[in-house]
Amino acid sequence: MTVAVSKPKRKTAKKRNNSKDQLLNAASTILTERNAIDISLSDIAEASGLNSALIKYHFGNKEGLLLALVERDAASTLGLLDQLLAMDVSPIQKVRLHVAGVVKTYAKVPYLNRLIHTLMDSKDPIVAEEMVNFFVKPLLESQTKILDEGLQAGIFHKIDPMMFYYSVIGACDYIFYARHSRKIVTGNSELTPEIRDKYINFVADTILKTLCIDSNTSIKT
Amino acid sequence: MTVAVSKPKRKTAKKRNNSKDQLLNAASTILTERNAIDISLSDIAEASGLNSALIKYHFGNKEGLLLALVERDAASTLGLLDQLLAMDVSPIQKVRLHVAGVVKTYAKVPYLNRLIHTLMDSKDPIVAEEMVNFFVKPLLESQTKILDEGLQAGIFHKIDPMMFYYSVIGACDYIFYARHSRKIVTGNSELTPEIRDKYINFVADTILKTLCIDSNTSIKT
Repeated sequence: MTVAVSKPKRKTAKKRNNSKDQLLNAASTILTERNAIDISLSDIAEASGLNSALIKYHFGNKEGLLLALVERDAASTLGLLDQLLAMDVSPIQKVRLHVAGVVKTYAKVPYLNRLIHTLMDSKDPIVAEEMVNFFVKPLLESQTKILDEGLQAGIFHKIDPMMFYYSVIGACDYIFYARHSRKIVTGNSELTPEIRDKYINFVADTILKTLCIDSNTSIKT
Repeated sequence: MTVAVSKPKRKTAKKRNNSKDQLLNAASTILTERNAIDISLSDIAEASGLNSALIKYHFGNKEGLLLALVERDAASTLGLLDQLLAMDVSPIQKVRLHVAGVVKTYAKVPYLNRLIHTLMDSKDPIVAEEMVNFFVKPLLESQTKILDEGLQAGIFHKIDPMMFYYSVIGACDYIFYARHSRKIVTGNSELTPEIRDKYINFVADTILKTLCIDSNTSIKT
């Protein structure tokens, strides 16, 4: 009897999770295709093939769904950032790996940065605070730790973390955001893994030339 | 008689221009306040105190109005870029002045870059092409000319204009776009002219360290 009762329960829970994932996947696909962050409940319902009432059931409202999407999409990246900080490599290598991580995240989820900033502009202060605590603070704190490590080791100049934050995140994001200019800029709208990796090296080299006291170190390591 | 007839005509023409400007100013204010590019005809009508039929009369539709807004907001900047190219200063100084121009434009019109990219994603190929021809191509061509000048003068390394374009424009724009993170990042949500100028120097110094063959030159000039 116990088995007979529990089986349908598991199935229902699985089905519920599936519809949650389906809604998140549909929103993600639409945001990527449109390269914009304006999306309606009916867009998501239509693309997922599910009733929009399920959005309310799982996420409360559209903002709740977008919040869940950001948390899903950014979680692995933020996890990698913690691992990076704990790694036994030089601060220079940490900057390189960090730039690579940011670029690869935006390559995979090109709407992520704009979605985060849209949610930070939310009229609901809880949503805005959630984004700050979930994304901006950990990112800024991790970057500051890497900069401090390099400073303590006598490898880096003292640099304003704010300048580092905006210039690195802005540069890493823009190549994916401005996708419709890519065909004009690069002659090809596809951002191949080769161009992506070349860009990672360019951004990392540029910032390391400013950071490193000995400019040769930045290239060697 | 001629005078009596022509006077009201001039008045009507002036009034027409006024309502056009009023609509553009209203859209500009809303976009700045919201830090977003989703805006409705009724939002603009309400904020301008004018009937939304006037939007159709002056601009055809919402996209037409946004296109006119971009052209109004970016025209002076693009004009300055032409002047910059013709100036008798070193390529290094041109890079510095260019970065300053871009940062100051986004400081003044923080929605401009996103609006341009939204219009480049337009379903209407004429709108998209207009943005490319009006903004991306002139900007990219001017940057390429400055890079070439430095290369010919034996001052700059050979650098991929695409890498230059995305990293510089992305860095310059992001500090204004991500305004809701500024309080966390800088402790103050106001971006003072002092911070703006410090950021201009940081971005210019960083890119010039990568560009210049002799790293000392980049700082001296």
